[in-house]
Amino acid sequence: MPLTLEGFGSYFAGGRQVVVSGQPSQRIKLSPQAVIEHDPNGTFHVEQAYVQWFAPAGSTARPPLVLVHGGCLTGASWETTPDGRPGWLDRFLRAGFAVHVVDGVERGRAGWCALPGIWPEAPVARSAEQIWDFYRLGPPDGFAARRGYPGQRFPLAALDTLICQHVPRWFSTIQAAAEALIAVLERVAGQGCPPVVLCHSNGGLIVTQAAWGRPDLLGGVVAVEGSGFPESPPPTGLAGKPFLFVMGDYLEEAALWRGLSAATSAVAGRLKAAGARVTDWRLPTLGIRGNSHLPMMDDNSDDIAARVIGWIEAEVR
Amino acid sequence: MPLTLEGFGSYFAGGRQVVVSGQPSQRIKLSPQAVIEHDPNGTFHVEQAYVQWFAPAGSTARPPLVLVHGGCLTGASWETTPDGRPGWLDRFLRAGFAVHVVDGVERGRAGWCALPGIWPEAPVARSAEQIWDFYRLGPPDGFAARRGYPGQRFPLAALDTLICQHVPRWFSTIQAAAEALIAVLERVAGQGCPPVVLCHSNGGLIVTQAAWGRPDLLGGVVAVEGSGFPESPPPTGLAGKPFLFVMGDYLEEAALWRGLSAATSAVAGRLKAAGARVTDWRLPTLGIRGNSHLPMMDDNSDDIAARVIGWIEAEVR
Repeated sequence: MPLTLEGFGSYFAGGRQVVVSGQPSQRIKLSPQAVIEHDPNGTFHVEQAYVQWFAPAGSTARPPLVLVHGGCLTGASWETTPDGRPGWLDRFLRAGFAVHVVDGVERGRAGWCALPGIWPEAPVARSAEQIWDFYRLGPPDGFAARRGYPGQRFPLAALDTLICQHVPRWFSTIQAAAEALIAVLERVAGQGCPPVVLCHSNGGLIVTQAAWGRPDLLGGVVAVEGSGFPESPPPTGLAGKPFLFVMGDYLEEAALWRGLSAATSAVAGRLKAAGARVTDWRLPTLGIRGNSHLPMMDDNSDDIAARVIGWIEAEVR
Repeated sequence: MPLTLEGFGSYFAGGRQVVVSGQPSQRIKLSPQAVIEHDPNGTFHVEQAYVQWFAPAGSTARPPLVLVHGGCLTGASWETTPDGRPGWLDRFLRAGFAVHVVDGVERGRAGWCALPGIWPEAPVARSAEQIWDFYRLGPPDGFAARRGYPGQRFPLAALDTLICQHVPRWFSTIQAAAEALIAVLERVAGQGCPPVVLCHSNGGLIVTQAAWGRPDLLGGVVAVEGSGFPESPPPTGLAGKPFLFVMGDYLEEAALWRGLSAATSAVAGRLKAAGARVTDWRLPTLGIRGNSHLPMMDDNSDDIAARVIGWIEAEVR
């Protein structure tokens, strides 16, 4: 089915300029025909977000959607699923939403900071074994044979493609990521309508931290499989704002996820107490079993997208 | 003007799996509610390319186009120009080409390798001052005041946005990048038609290295502002293949570019001697003055795109 776009493009938002000095230069072979004296000092821009946007024809009746990926991931998680089906980006565009896909601070096309002293600790990469455990694909002893939990909906035959989606990350950049996201939201909201922000996993922490700081910029939040949230009470500016939390299956299989499930219930409670309109979906209680930490890639990803779209239609005014 | 897509999506190609062992684990605070014991050992995929593709409705009469960015850059260089105009990705789609935008090895959404021992040397970041010099925007003493060369076509008021596009790079990954690109070309050519590969700057070295290895996968090459090429003779498999070299203005202003201009002439000569069909455009000799190292972002980017499209129509059969 063809898709007609009114427009598309990309932009950068947020971050800051830094100046490096006092570092020694080095000779670098740029190509077989060019050796350069590389001076590592000078002016750099760090901690910006990259955003790729698409506006389908006739999208003005919907609020814009901003998609914020999880930890060790990029905006690619919303594109083609590991087994080759159209992802949520496609589904939301076809439903008529203008979509802004974020590569957050230090991820993907946003770039990362290789300068000395800016992010002092070492970056962390996520192994296939960690992906298997953390994303609740199957029991630890099932990794080698790709034997998932019974009823697992993630397309396990495409696990190697999922692994390719992963990039290194830092754990010290949450505040910088929240600030860059606020710069994105200012730009999107400034076009006329506060966006709905849909986030995954660690994106839940970044988005709620941004929401605590600038509730005025949000039309609503959909936190899919959030892996943590601010402990502080939500600001009064979130009163009346719609929040949807979505959690998949197998939450009882690991201590980490029992804790994060409780953290989701707790932040949902804090938001309700602050007057927000909160919906808390545990998919198994809706009769939907088998979802991993990656509902946007599981074999029922279209069904979950349709339910999220239905929630936005009902709740975001 | 709306644009109708037959389809779009993304995929990964190439690279290899590596196994890390013997590294100590560390405790990491994942979020306010979760502390994990991070085991850095396990299975990882490194040196893959990421490709985002778009197929406009009715694109089958054209060869597919593969876009390969330059050093310290990502596929974002083909999108919106720094001053907010539609980039070459938009122009090629509207001209009816299916376009595959590559983020090469260790760039953008392809991810980079943070594992010990895989890429031993340190990554390099490009400062704003180096961008100014290397991209031939203006004289060295013009940087602070943004005073470019007379007639400069790069939108200097948007220099800060160009700086945001830059990401760190390694200089030891050219062969890995060429191999991942071959995996991309195998996939694209396997869909029925060998693609035209359009590359920028350091992408010229990666693309020609891939072309020397697998000439059968190429319908043609457009090397925009190439910054170096293989010294070895081209393979006989390139006989009859069309190559276009495009170089902008101000090549005489710096020793680096006088050398790289000569390198372009030299590789064009080697290709001609091997029987390739070579076109070598120095834009000023065509009466087009003022182009920087970034013709896809300069104020006449639409004109240059139209000329490249005309060359493809005339030369790629």
